[in-house]
Amino acid sequence: MNITIIGVGLIGGSVALGLKGFQTHIIGVDANPKHVQTALKLGIIDEANDLDTAVSKSDLIIMAIPVDAARKLLPYILNHMPANCTLTDMGSTKSGICQVAAEHPRRGAYVAAHPMAGTENSGPEAAIHGLFTHKKTVICERELSHSDSLDVVLKMYEILQMNILYMSPEDHDRHIAYVSHISHISSFTLGLTVLEIEKDEERIFDMASTGFASTVRLAKSSPDMWAPIFKQNAPQLSTALDAYIKNLQLFKELIEEGNIDEIRKLMTQANDIRRILDGIRQ
Amino acid sequence: MNITIIGVGLIGGSVALGLKGFQTHIIGVDANPKHVQTALKLGIIDEANDLDTAVSKSDLIIMAIPVDAARKLLPYILNHMPANCTLTDMGSTKSGICQVAAEHPRRGAYVAAHPMAGTENSGPEAAIHGLFTHKKTVICERELSHSDSLDVVLKMYEILQMNILYMSPEDHDRHIAYVSHISHISSFTLGLTVLEIEKDEERIFDMASTGFASTVRLAKSSPDMWAPIFKQNAPQLSTALDAYIKNLQLFKELIEEGNIDEIRKLMTQANDIRRILDGIRQ
Repeated sequence: MNITIIGVGLIGGSVALGLKGFQTHIIGVDANPKHVQTALKLGIIDEANDLDTAVSKSDLIIMAIPVDAARKLLPYILNHMPANCTLTDMGSTKSGICQVAAEHPRRGAYVAAHPMAGTENSGPEAAIHGLFTHKKTVICERELSHSDSLDVVLKMYEILQMNILYMSPEDHDRHIAYVSHISHISSFTLGLTVLEIEKDEERIFDMASTGFASTVRLAKSSPDMWAPIFKQNAPQLSTALDAYIKNLQLFKELIEEGNIDEIRKLMTQANDIRRILDGIRQ
Repeated sequence: MNITIIGVGLIGGSVALGLKGFQTHIIGVDANPKHVQTALKLGIIDEANDLDTAVSKSDLIIMAIPVDAARKLLPYILNHMPANCTLTDMGSTKSGICQVAAEHPRRGAYVAAHPMAGTENSGPEAAIHGLFTHKKTVICERELSHSDSLDVVLKMYEILQMNILYMSPEDHDRHIAYVSHISHISSFTLGLTVLEIEKDEERIFDMASTGFASTVRLAKSSPDMWAPIFKQNAPQLSTALDAYIKNLQLFKELIEEGNIDEIRKLMTQANDIRRILDGIRQ
């Protein structure tokens, strides 16, 4: 089976590594020529090629590129790929791309997906074998995909050992705003805030410890990948950030008032997050 | 050497484990009788005793209790401990306790310290051998401690293999607000915000992944330990939270405007946090 992966970075590269040895021939395509060369050299892909050539001989095409680029590219690929070829994506927002796909006569050949795994690193060097193992993929609008195309994508996620959740693009985007996107914004903003202070307080990072490292880890993530995600999920993120900022302001007021009982009460409520975290596979 | 550890939880218990085998006899004192019994049973301490008895026969007394309790207890211990005994604490705020100590005739027998290590867990079962290894301790107002007392505490941190930073209580509290306290508030508040949404969106946590786990890990921390820290460091935290909330609001506005170039620019600035994180020992 010829599989084209467009974007051979952290996600695309890790998919390629996971599909190796399953009678696949992986063709890598990337706007950055260095990335395909690195991916080829590292043995992540079997062939490097240009988009048109790769698309013309594929059975499965996977877009693992920023969500704005994926939305733009989708109609072009659906127009040019062979009959019986399946297209899927791995983007962290689903409403935008599903809207574009809905208007295309070959909608059935596309499967909207979001494998939920990653690290704060990027590029082909960041690709990891087993990145997706036992984690979850969301598939949206399964009813709009042909059963053959859905089967191809489900088979791929079976090889990657992922569990499948089905939901609407709107539910996906609303939920992911809370459990992924504001985590990233929280980290980015915390990193930014402390780096600003560093200008006046040079030795501030002498005191940074593992707790700090954990909270700001996601601030290392790729701006090219995340900025378009935030833009596409703006309405959901606006609501989620309002709730987050409101709670931060409440916390700040309670601290300023010295209302220790209420602070302790809120923190005890937050401790319930342990129940959630115990269920997440690290 | 008789060492009394008041509070045999995560921090006090880990100190006890680190000092084992260095000609020490560790006496555990805890307001919670279950904690001392557990610490004794786990072999963390050599003896469980009441505060007065323990204090009366100690060469070194370590307070590893919430910062409000430590500030209250300090004068009592300085009044009752033997001549040549040294008192130290491990609290995450230093201005408050240093103010109380400054008024005491035996100020010289006290060493104000903050070993910067921890996990999100609490209680004696959470104690870890090696928790402090190669991490940093801040010592404040060294010039107000007798050299004998300072030597005892430095020797202890040498055994625990910690590196020492010296600074004023005010510098400590200002810096720690940024590199530790707002990380905790950010996590607690994020946890709280997502748990609130869960009431309407039951399946939201099906989608939580490792990025989320990393960002909210600190929300599992002990409210009894952290609420008093936030109260004592209120002025510094108020400033730090203002800066953090302001940056969050800026981020939110840029997302609402769809100003992707400016979002990307801010995120690229935040990426510089990699330089800091690479220097933190995990």
